[in-house]
Amino acid sequence: MHQRTRRKAGMDSSANRRHGATRLRGVNPFRVMLVFNRAAELERQGRKIVHMEAGEPDFATAGTIREAAKRALDAGLTQYTQAPGIPELRDALVVHYRERHGLELPRERILITLGASGGLAILSHLLLRPGAGVLLTDPSYPCYRNLVRLAGAEAQLMPIGVEEDFQPSPALLERHRRNHTAGLWLASPGNPTGTVIPRRQLREISDWADAAGAHLLLDETYHGLHYVDDMPSILEINPGAFVVNSFSKYFGMTGWRLGWIVVPEDQVEAANILAQNLFISPSSFAQHAALEAFAPASREVFEQRRAAFRERRDYLAAELSALGMLLPREIQGAFYAYANISVFSHDSEAFCTQMLEEHGVAITPGTDFGEINGNEYVRMAFTTGMEDLKLGVERLRRALA
Amino acid sequence: MHQRTRRKAGMDSSANRRHGATRLRGVNPFRVMLVFNRAAELERQGRKIVHMEAGEPDFATAGTIREAAKRALDAGLTQYTQAPGIPELRDALVVHYRERHGLELPRERILITLGASGGLAILSHLLLRPGAGVLLTDPSYPCYRNLVRLAGAEAQLMPIGVEEDFQPSPALLERHRRNHTAGLWLASPGNPTGTVIPRRQLREISDWADAAGAHLLLDETYHGLHYVDDMPSILEINPGAFVVNSFSKYFGMTGWRLGWIVVPEDQVEAANILAQNLFISPSSFAQHAALEAFAPASREVFEQRRAAFRERRDYLAAELSALGMLLPREIQGAFYAYANISVFSHDSEAFCTQMLEEHGVAITPGTDFGEINGNEYVRMAFTTGMEDLKLGVERLRRALA
Repeated sequence: MHQRTRRKAGMDSSANRRHGATRLRGVNPFRVMLVFNRAAELERQGRKIVHMEAGEPDFATAGTIREAAKRALDAGLTQYTQAPGIPELRDALVVHYRERHGLELPRERILITLGASGGLAILSHLLLRPGAGVLLTDPSYPCYRNLVRLAGAEAQLMPIGVEEDFQPSPALLERHRRNHTAGLWLASPGNPTGTVIPRRQLREISDWADAAGAHLLLDETYHGLHYVDDMPSILEINPGAFVVNSFSKYFGMTGWRLGWIVVPEDQVEAANILAQNLFISPSSFAQHAALEAFAPASREVFEQRRAAFRERRDYLAAELSALGMLLPREIQGAFYAYANISVFSHDSEAFCTQMLEEHGVAITPGTDFGEINGNEYVRMAFTTGMEDLKLGVERLRRALA
Repeated sequence: MHQRTRRKAGMDSSANRRHGATRLRGVNPFRVMLVFNRAAELERQGRKIVHMEAGEPDFATAGTIREAAKRALDAGLTQYTQAPGIPELRDALVVHYRERHGLELPRERILITLGASGGLAILSHLLLRPGAGVLLTDPSYPCYRNLVRLAGAEAQLMPIGVEEDFQPSPALLERHRRNHTAGLWLASPGNPTGTVIPRRQLREISDWADAAGAHLLLDETYHGLHYVDDMPSILEINPGAFVVNSFSKYFGMTGWRLGWIVVPEDQVEAANILAQNLFISPSSFAQHAALEAFAPASREVFEQRRAAFRERRDYLAAELSALGMLLPREIQGAFYAYANISVFSHDSEAFCTQMLEEHGVAITPGTDFGEINGNEYVRMAFTTGMEDLKLGVERLRRALA
């Protein structure tokens, strides 16, 4: 046993020398996957599980888009494209920014990427260097801090709660700024929080970043899936900002791995070089299919789905509040309720385990999103139909009675 | 004017402070894209161009696979999958390694990735740390050195020529090893060289890496597209090696962005965490379609195409040698002739420009692949039909007469 322990220790140290393992410190697996896998296991045992853990719409991609993909496949559009994507799709986004945001972006500033994930990978290489600091809210999408840490930079976490609607004020930013702070990454609407940064606050944040000499990256992945009238892009306010967006959420194309980034003029060449090196090109026929996402028939499907999400939100927010959970003033976008559960528990992982094992409700512990205050929160996704949502609420009510 | 210059300089320095630009030093755009774009421009002017620059098969994806994708789309398989891919496809690769290589790999060691590119991105995060050295042949696929440099590691380039068939001996490796050398990345069959590392040499290399305490990464992307009888995977020799592979080349699925990696048992968890964080998941229906790549009807198509590539190779190798270019002993895999042109020129970029502008033949300068000796070489891809290949050779003959 002794010898085996020694040998194992020896292997580890050799592995550490040969591999880059140290860079993975602080990069965690997503707990939502553990919930998802355990829920599937319970289902195989015959249990009925209410799924409120998944971060994707419970709808298949619109038929219009799937049919367009089939036409592209029939036409043999199966080869590499240009690294930043096909001109037609980039031009469709030019029109999108013109119509939705009154912006005139040159095509060159828009690069199609392999999901928002691929876009973030390009931007992290473009923006980060070892030792730099990046301000992030805690909670936020865990990939941000993980990408920052993989680059050898520091994730400067700003704990923020439901009282502040999870979106930072300039005063909060200033309090967390350090000499090595080089950037600020935010999301609006937020994941897991569902809150939108109002236009005035976005302008204040942008001014603060400019004054602080920090780059500003806005994740606008949940744009379109918003339930407020004014949903500004940071590009309306700050043309020097970096934007990541996705065809996954509003456009309902998760499994297609298609997103985009917008970069300032002076970063176009570097972003293209990175796109070539990291990915060669996005999927060809997926891009041709995504063109169809801008057709009125597709838009109609998206708007119906948005209405369905809104109805679920209305229901869930009211019920969860009635149960005693603390929610933001309003869930303004995305499809998540990020609820403070501190009246019930200060250990969200134990809470989620209990809800799943004893009550058959799969929800995600806040520790996926917040390293500092995650244990006070859970994320409940309304990516399941009303019937199951009601069953889930009923089960939660019984559990918390 | 003065003031404007000053302001611009000020902006640049501020941009450098805020962005990670320094990490991009030594990361170049692919010159093949310049050739490709200029060729397209000349075609728009009415010129007939012979395309020998493209690094992808000139065939659309097999109809069997495209039909399978359409069925998956009809079935609504458009959502995220597990981060390392669907179990069915990983199991198909388990069978693939069993049948092709006599190996029993547990499914867990195989992760489906967003192209070989996505696989290399995961492996670079897994294996590299700032300051480490990675041995690479010069020439090699430019992404290797670019990914190494993006990680803040050092690309330790080993110049190697057509005389050595472009594949290193242990003596060469030993000559280039330094104290900080942590890894060795090779490709067999090679891009741009088309040469295969023979089994005996592969074993010597593997032994050398083990003794040197260096990790060993083999890019086996061009496996299947080989024209020799014995095409070993490094995994037959060294179960601790890291492998990247792709559905793009032999399976003809470039535009689908689907590849895979194989990692040692003790790296499975870290690789999964990286896959989650970097990509969420590969395309869902692309994976379902790729299952069809293992059906006999698809295999038949691939083998017909391999025969076509072999025929082109036979023709092109003989003709280029007759023209006075120096080629490796045998082009044993992939679809490239990497030719030494030093009897004609020591400036491959000027040579390629001349061939394109004056003679309408698009070929890629060796400077994309070799930083040290690239100016003595050009890459000619036989990814175009025999008729055009013959026209290309005829034009080269006239140009070099």
